[in-house]
Amino acid sequence: MQLTITAIDGIPEVRPGDDLPGLILSGCEATDVRLEPGDILVVTQKIVSKAEGAIVDLDQVEPSAFAIDYANRWGKDPRQVEVVLRESVRVVRMDKGVLITETRHGLVCANSGVDASNVPGGHIVTLLPKDPDASAARLRQAIQDRAGVDVPVIISDSFGRTWRNGIINVAVGISGLQALIDYRGQDDPYGYRMSATVIAIADELASAAELAMGKVEARPVALIKGYPYTPAPGTAHELVIDPERDMFR
Amino acid sequence: MQLTITAIDGIPEVRPGDDLPGLILSGCEATDVRLEPGDILVVTQKIVSKAEGAIVDLDQVEPSAFAIDYANRWGKDPRQVEVVLRESVRVVRMDKGVLITETRHGLVCANSGVDASNVPGGHIVTLLPKDPDASAARLRQAIQDRAGVDVPVIISDSFGRTWRNGIINVAVGISGLQALIDYRGQDDPYGYRMSATVIAIADELASAAELAMGKVEARPVALIKGYPYTPAPGTAHELVIDPERDMFR
Repeated sequence: MQLTITAIDGIPEVRPGDDLPGLILSGCEATDVRLEPGDILVVTQKIVSKAEGAIVDLDQVEPSAFAIDYANRWGKDPRQVEVVLRESVRVVRMDKGVLITETRHGLVCANSGVDASNVPGGHIVTLLPKDPDASAARLRQAIQDRAGVDVPVIISDSFGRTWRNGIINVAVGISGLQALIDYRGQDDPYGYRMSATVIAIADELASAAELAMGKVEARPVALIKGYPYTPAPGTAHELVIDPERDMFR
Repeated sequence: MQLTITAIDGIPEVRPGDDLPGLILSGCEATDVRLEPGDILVVTQKIVSKAEGAIVDLDQVEPSAFAIDYANRWGKDPRQVEVVLRESVRVVRMDKGVLITETRHGLVCANSGVDASNVPGGHIVTLLPKDPDASAARLRQAIQDRAGVDVPVIISDSFGRTWRNGIINVAVGISGLQALIDYRGQDDPYGYRMSATVIAIADELASAAELAMGKVEARPVALIKGYPYTPAPGTAHELVIDPERDMFR
């Protein structure tokens, strides 16, 4: 089995209201890559959020006393801390200058997914899209309407991990493919019945895409060919652990 | 930028003492793929452990009272629980039938990386290699000696994650490439100085490889072409968080 992952060139800086599906299709043309059935499109959260206007001008933010106190203790921007707190429903950890929260989507990540990098101007931060699955579905539909090909869309973001250094890309929004593959009950090649093997395919696809995208090169879209995904309506909620099974609340 | 990931066919069931570099090189031939400078080889922990004899026959294990009690409460094999405990230096969580430990390598993962699946016969479990970096280095050296190409080697294993369902593949042993890419201090495409962007490249490469390998198809080796890695001696220890920064002990 062979997969290819191609970073899409020619995507300009995205601004609120921009036609993201159009930019992606032009990018595919510029990269000389054809969208075909079976392909998977991975798009970073940042350009989706920017196109949707899910950004906040920090100059308009009045930080709370709590945000100011925390920011001062850890050398952060109090306005950005304020936005992080507003985007969260629960603080999971607030220690050592790291703020891990549960977002309104149920995602647990650093800083509620609020990000200052890759945004033009120093005073703007991006939020996660309001409903990343819906964003993925809209993008998928628009691409199908214009290019005539139904391609699953994954919206990716970089998350830290407990116990491991560095961030990796995961799926925060999905349309068109199953997020998890469940091998439980199937036999492995040696006839051993696998008891607990559920693979987070959508997260691995997001990580694979990141390798082609890079970080400083401004290639926020990648096309994956050759991965035999399982078609499904798709949702990133499948990837979020149930509170009852969460041992690290 | 384009990456290709090819699963290597024709790797038979691996047994203790098998010539793993030889099996991999024959597999590359059978798959009609050439090892070239710039390639990265990803090999699952299971076949490395099997070749090295890092396996335990459960029939030879005398479980402790502690292991028997826990196993009975959660419907586990007490002998396997015993092996998990012996492979660990610290229990991080032992709850809801899940046993998360710190291994002697410093890795935090479920069941100390002890695995019953993909092993012929129901009474054998695989352990993690004693020194996975050294295993990767030996494999890299043997392949260089025989094929004349120096190819970085990543030994991968599937880990669960806090807060997210499903497992993904990560790097537990590395030789020949830098595990992390540190973009801190560099400017992103919009001139914004990135303050905290360290990407766990080796983990993303392991995840990308898994997509090609699959789980039931017995393709435990993948070759990645086209990723511009940073050459380095390489160690998976870089990926393990310092105890002082660990907020989830």
